[in-house]
Amino acid sequence: MTTMMRSEIAEQPAALRATLDSLLSQVDEVRAIGERTRQLLFIARGTSDNAAVYGRYLVESHAGRLSALAAPSIATTYKRRLDLDGVLAVAISQSGRTEEIVETLTWAKDCGARTVGITNGGAGSPLAQAADVALCTVAGEEKAVPATKTYTTQLAALAVLALGLGADVDVDELRRVPDAVEKLIAEPGDVAAVVEGLLDKPGVVVSGRGLAFSTALETALKLKEACYLHAMGLSYADLLHGPIAVVDADTPALLVAAENSPTLAGTVALAERVVSAGAAAYTIGGGDALARAGTAALNGPELPEWVAPMGLIVPAQLLTEALARRLGIDPDAPRGLNKVTQTD
Amino acid sequence: MTTMMRSEIAEQPAALRATLDSLLSQVDEVRAIGERTRQLLFIARGTSDNAAVYGRYLVESHAGRLSALAAPSIATTYKRRLDLDGVLAVAISQSGRTEEIVETLTWAKDCGARTVGITNGGAGSPLAQAADVALCTVAGEEKAVPATKTYTTQLAALAVLALGLGADVDVDELRRVPDAVEKLIAEPGDVAAVVEGLLDKPGVVVSGRGLAFSTALETALKLKEACYLHAMGLSYADLLHGPIAVVDADTPALLVAAENSPTLAGTVALAERVVSAGAAAYTIGGGDALARAGTAALNGPELPEWVAPMGLIVPAQLLTEALARRLGIDPDAPRGLNKVTQTD
Repeated sequence: MTTMMRSEIAEQPAALRATLDSLLSQVDEVRAIGERTRQLLFIARGTSDNAAVYGRYLVESHAGRLSALAAPSIATTYKRRLDLDGVLAVAISQSGRTEEIVETLTWAKDCGARTVGITNGGAGSPLAQAADVALCTVAGEEKAVPATKTYTTQLAALAVLALGLGADVDVDELRRVPDAVEKLIAEPGDVAAVVEGLLDKPGVVVSGRGLAFSTALETALKLKEACYLHAMGLSYADLLHGPIAVVDADTPALLVAAENSPTLAGTVALAERVVSAGAAAYTIGGGDALARAGTAALNGPELPEWVAPMGLIVPAQLLTEALARRLGIDPDAPRGLNKVTQTD
Repeated sequence: MTTMMRSEIAEQPAALRATLDSLLSQVDEVRAIGERTRQLLFIARGTSDNAAVYGRYLVESHAGRLSALAAPSIATTYKRRLDLDGVLAVAISQSGRTEEIVETLTWAKDCGARTVGITNGGAGSPLAQAADVALCTVAGEEKAVPATKTYTTQLAALAVLALGLGADVDVDELRRVPDAVEKLIAEPGDVAAVVEGLLDKPGVVVSGRGLAFSTALETALKLKEACYLHAMGLSYADLLHGPIAVVDADTPALLVAAENSPTLAGTVALAERVVSAGAAAYTIGGGDALARAGTAALNGPELPEWVAPMGLIVPAQLLTEALARRLGIDPDAPRGLNKVTQTD
């Protein structure tokens, strides 16, 4: 039986192509709204929040603007106004209908920010309607509860946002993403070995740094929501400040890096440290150097670091879907979750 | 046998008194450096990062300035300059000697920020030397690896920072903190019941929102580093976006709120949801309303919300120390950790 989650993972090359075709025509629109922007403020929850982490690192490392993740409770619970002049607020929501996110974006506009909405809910969704500029991803309807194609297309929208903010990158590298993702779906690496390695474990530590930190967080979230695993997503620096105590023979690490990233050397060193402590280190991406240092390897995309997160998550999605089935869980409908989460 | 961790927990009232006596004389100095500040940028790792989360919510909710947590890798790994004019960068480090933190603060200054250093390492520490203004906590030497008194005194320093930024709060409420912490150490609530409840569990979800989110993160970190528990710290809104799937009969929740907080109602509702799903919900603070909704209760301080986090963490520290001993772990020296963590 093929799950919806598995089908939607496979739809990502087409979803990315359609999204880029549509959104690359909006770069000038982003450029206009982004003028005078000295700071970005991302507003999101759950998977979309992990996309925001990518956006934050991408904008800081390549478009030279300070970026932050908003604390929605300041808007919705504490109802406190801040001076957001010169701020570009970017809200991200798969459905475009999460009230907390729409309310926080509206609050940001009232506080003086310019606003962008990124959603798969279409131009008629409340989020798209509330934003000055809407970047609508073209992923098609997503039926499985764990987000896959709506996540990678959110990353594509954020790459377009960075282009509009003048990022020092080559747009042709972004256009190569759908093919690279297609290749990864066909050749994801040793998924079966990692499934076996995680099968009877209570938890896993997932770590990456810089642009790949978003992939670590999103991988941990997938494993939590679809496999009920105690998966902790951490930057590798934060991991060394305490949680490294959790890693042992019973708690493997899953380590992710782009092949050509300045964070690769540190990630390889961490894999070596985990293995020498007697634990397993499964790796995603990072080329031969990271694969050699770990216990079993998932492949990364043949892409430059700034767009690599759109590929790095793909073997982790395949791992999640396969592990859920092995655990007897229907990955399309994990317990306790609905497709649209409403929080106040 | 009394552990060093237990002794240092008990030293917190004195450490807080000494710190406030010293730092309240520096409010004018903070006011001067904070002039023209439109945005705060906190730089920290580990426990100090959890303190930064308190600082971030406190400054946004009571001093009306946008605040963010820095991504140190932008400075140290990607070596990218940002325009930080109008930014007040606040670095927090127990030792004042973590190179990554000192380097990132120096980077912030080079990018145009004004700078504050918060440390227990003294005025001669590299961090205090690098900052325009040093707020030195007076906690005395901390010997146990899990930070306790250096954490709560960091929170006190951040409260002083907020006063210097013109927060709409009453300084007399801050002066009441040492007595309230002393009372909590004497009457922390039903620690034994929560120790029993966590004893054979692989993990726990720790959740709080707004100002209490920092307490949830710090509680989770303590349980990870000293009890090797898979403890996830989450805001209650993020918890509902996926990780709620992890909570079951084997994974209790630990829920924290201040008694007089706008986040209390949501936390009570979450406790009721967890209990009705057949899992245990242990509570910290939140008065009778939260205690009644949960399975067993730890007490909170008799303090207003803005200073409550200095008390809310105390029963969680006592819980961590007691649970570690029951698990046969020496809480003073958990595996894999040193007192000063160096990351690049």
